[in-house]
Amino acid sequence: MNSIECKGFKAAGIIAGIKKKNHKDLGLIFSEVPANAAAVFTCNRVQAAPVALSRERIQDGRCQALIVNSGNANCCTGVQGLHDAQAMTRVVAQQLDIEENLVMVASTGVIGNPLPLRKVESAVPELVKSLSPEGFIDLAQAIMTTDTVPKLIHRRAELRGKSYNVIGVAKGAGMIKPNMATMLCFICTDLAVPSDLLQRALITSTEQSFNRITIDGDTSTNDTVLLLANSGSEAAVENRDDLKVFQQVLDEITIHLAKELVRDGEGVTKLVEIKVMGASTDQDARIIADTIAHSNLVKTAFFGEDANWGRILAAAGRAGVPIDPDNTSIYFNDVQMVKNGLRCGDEAEAKATAVLKTPEFAVTLQMNLGNGKASVLTCDFSIDYVKINADYRT
Amino acid sequence: MNSIECKGFKAAGIIAGIKKKNHKDLGLIFSEVPANAAAVFTCNRVQAAPVALSRERIQDGRCQALIVNSGNANCCTGVQGLHDAQAMTRVVAQQLDIEENLVMVASTGVIGNPLPLRKVESAVPELVKSLSPEGFIDLAQAIMTTDTVPKLIHRRAELRGKSYNVIGVAKGAGMIKPNMATMLCFICTDLAVPSDLLQRALITSTEQSFNRITIDGDTSTNDTVLLLANSGSEAAVENRDDLKVFQQVLDEITIHLAKELVRDGEGVTKLVEIKVMGASTDQDARIIADTIAHSNLVKTAFFGEDANWGRILAAAGRAGVPIDPDNTSIYFNDVQMVKNGLRCGDEAEAKATAVLKTPEFAVTLQMNLGNGKASVLTCDFSIDYVKINADYRT
Repeated sequence: MNSIECKGFKAAGIIAGIKKKNHKDLGLIFSEVPANAAAVFTCNRVQAAPVALSRERIQDGRCQALIVNSGNANCCTGVQGLHDAQAMTRVVAQQLDIEENLVMVASTGVIGNPLPLRKVESAVPELVKSLSPEGFIDLAQAIMTTDTVPKLIHRRAELRGKSYNVIGVAKGAGMIKPNMATMLCFICTDLAVPSDLLQRALITSTEQSFNRITIDGDTSTNDTVLLLANSGSEAAVENRDDLKVFQQVLDEITIHLAKELVRDGEGVTKLVEIKVMGASTDQDARIIADTIAHSNLVKTAFFGEDANWGRILAAAGRAGVPIDPDNTSIYFNDVQMVKNGLRCGDEAEAKATAVLKTPEFAVTLQMNLGNGKASVLTCDFSIDYVKINADYRT
Repeated sequence: MNSIECKGFKAAGIIAGIKKKNHKDLGLIFSEVPANAAAVFTCNRVQAAPVALSRERIQDGRCQALIVNSGNANCCTGVQGLHDAQAMTRVVAQQLDIEENLVMVASTGVIGNPLPLRKVESAVPELVKSLSPEGFIDLAQAIMTTDTVPKLIHRRAELRGKSYNVIGVAKGAGMIKPNMATMLCFICTDLAVPSDLLQRALITSTEQSFNRITIDGDTSTNDTVLLLANSGSEAAVENRDDLKVFQQVLDEITIHLAKELVRDGEGVTKLVEIKVMGASTDQDARIIADTIAHSNLVKTAFFGEDANWGRILAAAGRAGVPIDPDNTSIYFNDVQMVKNGLRCGDEAEAKATAVLKTPEFAVTLQMNLGNGKASVLTCDFSIDYVKINADYRT
């Protein structure tokens, strides 16, 4: 048995000619039986057609297949876009001989161009033929846009002595910000989980992972996280304790993929955790962490490997929540750079600069105001980010 | 008479050795008599020492001199920083033989390093000697940090047949965002204006100018706008109608300087006005305009001369206020690119792309929801912005 199998699931990814270059751009997930399903979507008020359709279809908590394309977001495409999204699911349903309303759809790519539906429709027969238990790596490739590597994780876990599998694939890599990154993530498990518990587990997990990352502060119109549980294994969630066990595994999957997204963010050279402790409330801590995580001045300093704590403190100061600068301390990993609002000296700066030269590190602020805490994953802001995004459509 | 004179005012700018390179870094404004004074400061909760001191001293609405340095922000410098700011004003007061509490102080530059007070103190005698009616251009040079050009404007205007002068100098050029850009701006007029009216006029003018610009979304700890009116001319504001006449001139000055700041923003190649019309309320319009103006994806597309309206609409969609994407139109100057949420076609795109290739243009969104409108000035986001800010402290 292939190590990344998930019982009862097959996947595929092929070249349908949607992308300009000859890369995989059409993917499919198929469950042999209808799976319980949960999903979280973008909170952008501009929503792509596939999001509108899938959001409607997920209501009954069931899904048997997902078709996804890259290279075209099918967003800002009006009524035609909705027809096209529906047509994508129809042709899949026909080829797989399943109910159309059990098929979800997702798209990612350029906004505002009509979906090349013909290319999709004529590729679906081959897509269906390509389905295989080992097809998730092809799927991971087919959903890439500016991602440089496919993102795939497989975990084998046990619940009350019975083993089950979880496979997750995801794509980034710009337009990533808390409250749903611009991203697609599809997670399949052969565990049995009631659909209401599945939705709860996904929301909890998303809050710990995808809603805690930022690359450029923009939120996409197409964000979709889909979780399918098809009971293909003998393991089953039957009570709250079981759910806790599964929650841990799910969180491991989503946090891993979230980190992978930031690590592979457009032009990223640094993965940085912003930890805020001692704020008045958790909410204040989150606002401070987000403001720092989004500051272009802070992010360009990370790129320059510059322990520019002044910019970090200045970002905290404009977050709009109470802070006491004269009582704030800042650490780079375990190196204290600022104590009570004042710089700790040249030795600390030398050590902090050494931390900045590593590819992954944490910046911790101790606000000394209360017990509020929060943590956000961010990245540096590089010359390549600008290059990638200045040229994206050309 | 020199054309940029303002009666009763003198200014100076010299090299004090605060900056690493041999550039002017210490400036002075002196009014022969105490002037009525108004000021607006940063709303960042982290405030530099000179801001704290000047904010206190401006309370009585009078000021006779301002000392300002670049190269060091005297921020996050604790009690010592406050002592240093005060010492700067003391030495100026002694040399000019005026009251110490009539001297304001401003600083700009790197955060967190102790102010080199000795250098300032030993340079003040020369600074005072250099004072001259034509010294404003030296002052404008002395406050530059990453600015590439000094910013100076002079207007000669009339009030009820009597002429008066207004001179304004300003500096940017990163950390610029609405609600006080990171900037310094000093405006002198030889008009007579009561200090309460002066403060009202400055707040109104700031709202129309400096609070409507953004470069990188960061807010500095040192922002200061100071307006001095010393009655050196025979013109005087005596009633509300007079104030209106002066307000127009003042707005012309501040809007000119605000545009100059954006135009000279770090790495800027495009000056873009984001106009939002037809929003539910003016406040909604402002939130939408600000979100677009701050979007890194939108700004990198401007840099790439890409009429990427999808990113603009997506930014509007995540602004957090109601929008109706299917009823929204987008224009680049007078070229309609999007009608009711849909792209207008290849011809429109070609024309829009031509607009993007010009150095200054407007993006207009018609939301078709109500009468709310707002306008914000922003710029593109270039490779040079990242280069400048990755290397700032080194």
